[in-house]
Amino acid sequence: MNKNEIEQHIIALEKNALQKWIEGDASGYLDLYAEDASYFDPFWDKRLEGHKEMENFYENFVGVFLSSYEMKRPMVCVTDQMAVLSYELVVNSGNISHNWNCSEVYMLQEDGGWKIVHSHWSFYRPM
Amino acid sequence: MNKNEIEQHIIALEKNALQKWIEGDASGYLDLYAEDASYFDPFWDKRLEGHKEMENFYENFVGVFLSSYEMKRPMVCVTDQMAVLSYELVVNSGNISHNWNCSEVYMLQEDGGWKIVHSHWSFYRPM
Repeated sequence: MNKNEIEQHIIALEKNALQKWIEGDASGYLDLYAEDASYFDPFWDKRLEGHKEMENFYENFVGVFLSSYEMKRPMVCVTDQMAVLSYELVVNSGNISHNWNCSEVYMLQEDGGWKIVHSHWSFYRPM
Repeated sequence: MNKNEIEQHIIALEKNALQKWIEGDASGYLDLYAEDASYFDPFWDKRLEGHKEMENFYENFVGVFLSSYEMKRPMVCVTDQMAVLSYELVVNSGNISHNWNCSEVYMLQEDGGWKIVHSHWSFYRPM
């Protein structure tokens, strides 16, 4: 894949995981996280580290269904083995919207697939 | 440099910029950002894009002096051309402490140096 194809591939991987997530299914993201993935989230006082901690984290969201999402202004910076995707995310749940800033660092795996090695989600909140 | 050397080099670059930043000097970070760097911050409703926007952003902090910082649990995931550093940051200003989650994506430049292409800072706030 050339850089443009990698970029489109990574956006498609992320959208697939997001779509499953708003339907209450964490498997899309759990399949994407590398074994040693790390994760920052505003709900936790420490960085989550490793797939097992991610699994425990997502158990908190079992049965959470959201209405829709919008991935705004996705931008990917690509190298041969690593790429960073960032975007602004609007998640709608009934009449309530949440605005997130999302950064996902993908790394090429030995089997040729791309997995997330570091993830940073935060709320956008004007001060 | 081998991977361990790159890891230590990147942590040193970041600490150098942090040290200048708490002394009210943004030049450490401005020197580290690549021309097309992008940046998420809780204070802004959009991702900042490009060095000029970063310069404007840092102008808000001219004259802000902080007492000290602590970089906690730095972790670097390294490939040949890109690396991601994440850490928990405690910044002390007098009697007040702020807790940040920080992710910095560094990319190898043509001149052999490493620069930040994507940055994501967020407050840790328990919900």
